Amino acid sequence: MAVYTDVTDEALFAFLSAYDLGAVLSFKGIAEGVENSNFLLHCEAGRFILTLYEKRVRPNDLPFFIGLMEHLAAKKLSCPLPVKRRDGEALGTLAGRPAAIVTFLDGVSVRKPEARQCAETGRALAQLHLAGGDFGLFRRNALSVAHWPELFAASRARADEVSPGLAQEIAAELDSLERLWPCDLPQGVIHADLFPDNVFFIGPKLSGLIDFYFACNDALAYDLAICLNAWCFEPDGSFNATKGRALLQGYQSLRPLEDVERGALPVLARGAAMRFLLTRLYDWLNVPPGALVKPKNPLEYLSKLRFHQTIDNAGEYGLIE
Amino acid sequence: MAVYTDVTDEALFAFLSAYDLGAVLSFKGIAEGVENSNFLLHCEAGRFILTLYEKRVRPNDLPFFIGLMEHLAAKKLSCPLPVKRRDGEALGTLAGRPAAIVTFLDGVSVRKPEARQCAETGRALAQLHLAGGDFGLFRRNALSVAHWPELFAASRARADEVSPGLAQEIAAELDSLERLWPCDLPQGVIHADLFPDNVFFIGPKLSGLIDFYFACNDALAYDLAICLNAWCFEPDGSFNATKGRALLQGYQSLRPLEDVERGALPVLARGAAMRFLLTRLYDWLNVPPGALVKPKNPLEYLSKLRFHQTIDNAGEYGLIE
Repeated sequence: MAVYTDVTDEALFAFLSAYDLGAVLSFKGIAEGVENSNFLLHCEAGRFILTLYEKRVRPNDLPFFIGLMEHLAAKKLSCPLPVKRRDGEALGTLAGRPAAIVTFLDGVSVRKPEARQCAETGRALAQLHLAGGDFGLFRRNALSVAHWPELFAASRARADEVSPGLAQEIAAELDSLERLWPCDLPQGVIHADLFPDNVFFIGPKLSGLIDFYFACNDALAYDLAICLNAWCFEPDGSFNATKGRALLQGYQSLRPLEDVERGALPVLARGAAMRFLLTRLYDWLNVPPGALVKPKNPLEYLSKLRFHQTIDNAGEYGLIE
Repeated sequence: MAVYTDVTDEALFAFLSAYDLGAVLSFKGIAEGVENSNFLLHCEAGRFILTLYEKRVRPNDLPFFIGLMEHLAAKKLSCPLPVKRRDGEALGTLAGRPAAIVTFLDGVSVRKPEARQCAETGRALAQLHLAGGDFGLFRRNALSVAHWPELFAASRARADEVSPGLAQEIAAELDSLERLWPCDLPQGVIHADLFPDNVFFIGPKLSGLIDFYFACNDALAYDLAICLNAWCFEPDGSFNATKGRALLQGYQSLRPLEDVERGALPVLARGAAMRFLLTRLYDWLNVPPGALVKPKNPLEYLSKLRFHQTIDNAGEYGLIE
């Protein structure tokens, strides 16, 4: 849950005076998003999400995120649309932080995705990749293979507190990943964090994608590998190949993978597991005092990483050649 | 902020199957209420608040709270109306806790009330007292004068950690309050927690009252004394007599105080300050590990208590005879 910053009614009304949204009907902090403070804002003009960007988001990246949502919404992808002030700007300042208002998306995220929801998510991811094809801004992935060694360095000394032998296992895997990581894959804009809590459904139907604050440019198939990890494992740690097949088929129904992407999928999935293992490990070892967010267990991703190390080819994920 | 309990989409859909609210359009934990977990629930039938009653609320009290909201809403007081299931019940079980759905009230609470908002609040409090006059259930005030000594006993040994001499000052005041406390005042249903965060406004107009989970039977004027403390002091600790007058005039425009109530107002205000001093002191000294709620400073209420000790008669609060 996340409401890191307190917004008074006075500050809110001053902020909203730059917009044409009518009177405020309600305003509530919501338990959504981990990096930022989010509020549900209901005005005469409709329902919106007001986001205050907290310190983990770099202000320089905001035009990329805001511009991407505008670009994707214009291409009919169902995602939040930034709302402009009367002066044409979508970014303002509230309670000393950069802040933006986006349209509210109906829908509920699922805790235990079913195969058909994996399929819909695969389709939506492909839609996003296609729609992002002609987006004009560029943002390097700050959490990709080149950054993992430094991320690991920040946790290495204490990694074995979490699980004996963990430091050595990660070090060895980072060596392998550096050697094996493909650099000839189709690139584009990726979501980079399309976990089930960022995908909304109304009944069986996918209603939209949210939280573009890790979006960046990277290999498209790496985004799919992140989803394989996030959507297709069971709570007991086992890989559900039915869900894997559904996700991959959903994706390929709109954007068939190239041979080089299929071949790279196992190593991309290892890398995707490593990226979340490392950030979770860091967060686990560095819980700030008074934190409102319970850190996620890094070992879930160690188990996924070990699974992918046993995979020879993408057919084992349910990919039909 | 408060979302103590995690509700999965599966558990939610099972719970809602007993209601006629149509498909779920959105469901978000909100940072509102301190005792319970609250969610904003948007269904085809409209917008609602879903509350899970956490362990500080006694299940036996729930029929009083639910019944009171139904009673007040039927009398046209703007407050949440409990929504009944198809079987006629307003209380169910979700995630192992008692749970209820109430209608959503539009409005925004104010951080720094203005005098006109104090006046509206006084009027609404009188409306509540009048509307509660023929409510059939009874709930003893579990946080009134008779309970303060035991509440104090739980913090006494460590009170001086918060402020040197605090234990002795409270003990002396409790003796005075026991001696001075009036028992001949008009009784009825009181809100008992009508702080600014429980009163909503749309623009200048009061749109509703929320959070009836401290409501009980007690002296009506004691409820007004709670509001004097909660609405009429400035952040620097000074009493704002203009706001006091506005609150009291607003109240008396619908329910003029009896002489015995006017006379008792200073001691009631001391008691109301004591009640919040004691619960805040306890919470301050007993922050549970992993608490999501920052405890409120008890000393704010010590300062209010000391102010009321200097008051000779209710005229000093702005009460016009």
